[in-house]
Amino acid sequence: MSGTDPGEAHLHRLVLFSDAVFAIAITLLAIEIHPPEHWNGIPHLLSLMAPKLAAYAVSFAVIGIYWVSHRRIFSRLASANGILDTLNFVVLGLVALLPLATELLWEQVGGQAYPVYVALVGAIGLALAATWGYAAFIGKLAKPVPWPEAVFILARVAVLPGLMCGLSFFSIIYPWGWALMAALVGGFSLLGRWISRLSASPAPDTTT
Amino acid sequence: MSGTDPGEAHLHRLVLFSDAVFAIAITLLAIEIHPPEHWNGIPHLLSLMAPKLAAYAVSFAVIGIYWVSHRRIFSRLASANGILDTLNFVVLGLVALLPLATELLWEQVGGQAYPVYVALVGAIGLALAATWGYAAFIGKLAKPVPWPEAVFILARVAVLPGLMCGLSFFSIIYPWGWALMAALVGGFSLLGRWISRLSASPAPDTTT
Amino acid sequence: MSGTDPGEAHLHRLVLFSDAVFAIAITLLAIEIHPPEHWNGIPHLLSLMAPKLAAYAVSFAVIGIYWVSHRRIFSRLASANGILDTLNFVVLGLVALLPLATELLWEQVGGQAYPVYVALVGAIGLALAATWGYAAFIGKLAKPVPWPEAVFILARVAVLPGLMCGLSFFSIIYPWGWALMAALVGGFSLLGRWISRLSASPAPDTTT
Amino acid sequence: MSGTDPGEAHLHRLVLFSDAVFAIAITLLAIEIHPPEHWNGIPHLLSLMAPKLAAYAVSFAVIGIYWVSHRRIFSRLASANGILDTLNFVVLGLVALLPLATELLWEQVGGQAYPVYVALVGAIGLALAATWGYAAFIGKLAKPVPWPEAVFILARVAVLPGLMCGLSFFSIIYPWGWALMAALVGGFSLLGRWISRLSASPAPDTTT
Repeated sequence: MSGTDPGEAHLHRLVLFSDAVFAIAITLLAIEIHPPEHWNGIPHLLSLMAPKLAAYAVSFAVIGIYWVSHRRIFSRLASANGILDTLNFVVLGLVALLPLATELLWEQVGGQAYPVYVALVGAIGLALAATWGYAAFIGKLAKPVPWPEAVFILARVAVLPGLMCGLSFFSIIYPWGWALMAALVGGFSLLGRWISRLSASPAPDTTT
Repeated sequence: MSGTDPGEAHLHRLVLFSDAVFAIAITLLAIEIHPPEHWNGIPHLLSLMAPKLAAYAVSFAVIGIYWVSHRRIFSRLASANGILDTLNFVVLGLVALLPLATELLWEQVGGQAYPVYVALVGAIGLALAATWGYAAFIGKLAKPVPWPEAVFILARVAVLPGLMCGLSFFSIIYPWGWALMAALVGGFSLLGRWISRLSASPAPDTTT
Repeated sequence: MSGTDPGEAHLHRLVLFSDAVFAIAITLLAIEIHPPEHWNGIPHLLSLMAPKLAAYAVSFAVIGIYWVSHRRIFSRLASANGILDTLNFVVLGLVALLPLATELLWEQVGGQAYPVYVALVGAIGLALAATWGYAAFIGKLAKPVPWPEAVFILARVAVLPGLMCGLSFFSIIYPWGWALMAALVGGFSLLGRWISRLSASPAPDTTT
Repeated sequence: MSGTDPGEAHLHRLVLFSDAVFAIAITLLAIEIHPPEHWNGIPHLLSLMAPKLAAYAVSFAVIGIYWVSHRRIFSRLASANGILDTLNFVVLGLVALLPLATELLWEQVGGQAYPVYVALVGAIGLALAATWGYAAFIGKLAKPVPWPEAVFILARVAVLPGLMCGLSFFSIIYPWGWALMAALVGGFSLLGRWISRLSASPAPDTTT
C-alpha cells in the first residue's frame, strides 16, 4: 500500500473494489430465485425452475465474460486517476443492474424483455470500451501497447459481448443464428491473432 | 501480512475491509428494485421504473464519491490504530444505511424523504472528516502532509458531498441550483490547486 | 501467492476470506430494514424506525468488536492449517447468523430475544477464543508470544464481548449496569497493560 | 499487480474473485432464514427454527469444505489462463446455487429434495475436479507435482464431498452410515499419506 507508486496503489485498490462488485453481482443473481411451493419429483422441479435457471446461466455467463474483459483491460494498465474511477463506476453501476434485468427476463410475457436485457449488456460493453479508450488513448494510463492492438481491444469489448448476447436470444428462435455467432467469435479470434502477430513484427509503425 | 510493520498491516486490512463494505453497499442498492408486474413496451417499463432507477443512480454516485474520498484519505495514511478502526466503523455503518435511505427516497410521498437522505449523506461526510481529522491531527497516523492541505481535505470531505447531494435535489425544483453547484465544485477545485501549490512552495510554515 | 511460505499464503487467504464474510455480514444487517409505509415528518419516521436502528447499531458494534478481535488475533499468527480453517469457519458461521439474530431482536415481544442474542454473541467469543487457543497452545501457529499474554488474550476474547453485550441490555433496565461495564472494560484494560509490561520485562519464564 | 508475471497476476486476481464469491455465498445462506412470528421461550424458538438451522449448518460445511479444496488446488497452481477462468466460473456458478438448494432442503416435503441437493454438491466436486484436471494435466498451469499425487487430488475432490454429503443424509435414517463415512474419510486420508510418502521417495517415475 505504501512505498509504491501512488498511481499503482490507486489502480490496485480500484481493481480489488471492482472484483468485489463483480463477485457480489454474480452471486446475487441467484438470490431472487426461490424454490416452487409444490413439486413432485425432480423432473417436475426442473421444469418449473427451468426459465429461472436458464436466465441465471445466461447472466452468469455475461458477468463472467465481462469480468474476464475487465481483468484483461486492467492488466494492461499501469496507473489510475479520477476519470478512470468515474468510467469504471459507470461499468460497475450497469453490472449491478444485471440481477434486476435477469429477473425481468424470467418474468417476461411474450419476449419483450429481450431487447431491454440486450441493451443493458451492450451498454456495459460500451462503458468498458470507453474505460479502455480513455485509459489507452487519452489518459495515458496503459503500459505501452501497439495502437492496432489497442483499437482492436476497444472494438472487441465494445461490440462482442452485446452481439453474442443478442445472437444467443435470436438463436433460440432461428437456430442458424448459432452459425452466425460461431463465425463472429471465430472471426474476432482470428483478427486478434493477426493483429498481435502484426504488433510483434518489427514494423516501425506499431511500436508506439 | 507478516514481516511488515504491524501498523501498516493493520491499515492494509482495514482498507480491504472497508472496500468490501463499500462494494457490498453499492451492489445492494439495486437488490430491492424489482420489475413491475405489468408493462407494455420499453417506454412504459422505463417510465414505471424511472423513480427507482433515478434513486439508484443518485445513491450509486454518492457511494462512488465517498469511496473516492475514502481511498484518497487512506492513501495518505501510514498506519492505523483502534480509534481509527472505530471512526471508520462509524463511516461504514452509515454507508451501509444508504440502501435503506434509497428505498425511502423512491417510496416517498411529497418530498419529505429528501431531508432524511441529505442528512445521512452529510453525516457520512462528517464521519469521514472526523476519521481524517483524527488520523492527521491527533493520532499522527498520516504520512507527512502540510497542514493547510490537511485542513482543506478535512473541510472538503466534511461539506462537499452533502452540499452536492442537497443541491442536486434543490436543483430539481429550482434549476439555477445547478449553477450554484458548478460554482461550488469549481471553487473547491481552484482552492485545492491553490493550496497544493502553496504547500509545494518552500515556505517554512508548510513543511510540518 | 507463489514463492512464499505455503503456511503464510494459506493464512493470507484465510484472512481475506474472513474479512469478506465479516464485511458481508455487517452490510447485510441493514438489508432487512425497510422504511415504514406511512410516516409524517422526520420525528415520526425516526420513532417508527427506532427499534430497528437501535438493533442495527448494536449488531454493527458487535461485528465491529469481533472484527477487531479477529484482526488482532490473526496478526499474531505466522501460519495456518486445516484445523485453524475449521475453527475459523465456526466463528464465521456464527457471525453470519447475526443478521438473523438482529431481526429477532427488533421483532421480539417482551424481551425474550435478549438471552438468545447474548448467547449467540457469547458463542462467537468462545469460538474465537478456541481459534486463538488452538493456534497459540496446540497448533503452534502463532509468532512467539509470552504465555501470560496468550492466556490473557484467550480470556479477553472469550468473555469480554459477550459480557459487554449482556450488560448493555441489562443496563437498559438497571442503569447502574453501565458502571459495572465501565469497571469491567477498565479492569481488563489495566490487566492487559500490566501483563504486557510483565512480558516486556526480561523475566526468564515469559520468553517462550 | 504490475512488474510480476502476467499469468501469476491473473491467478492472483482469479483467487481473490473466487474467495469473494465463496464468502458471499456462505453469508447469504442465512439471509433467507427469518425468525418465526410467534414463539414462546427459547426451546420453542429452537424447535421452530431447527430445520432451517440444520440446513444452514450442512450448507455452511459444504461451502467450507469446497473452499478448503479450492484453496488447496489453487495453492498448487503457478499460472492461469482463459480456460481455467471458464472452468472456475462453472464451479462458482454452482456454488452460488447452494443458498437456493438450502432453501429447497428446509422447505421439502417427504425427503424429495435430498437427491437434488446431493446432485448439486456432487456437481461442484466434478467441476472442481475438472478445473484441477485441466490445470495439472492439460493446461500445464500447476507447479511440479508427482502424477500419482495429482491423480489422487483429482479423485478426492471429485467424489469425497459428494459422498460425504450423501452419506450424511443417509445416516440420518440408517445410523450405521456414519461408520461407512468414517471408513471413507479414514481410507482417503491413509491413501493420501501413502501417496505423498511414495512421491517423496526418490523413485524415478514420480519426479515428473
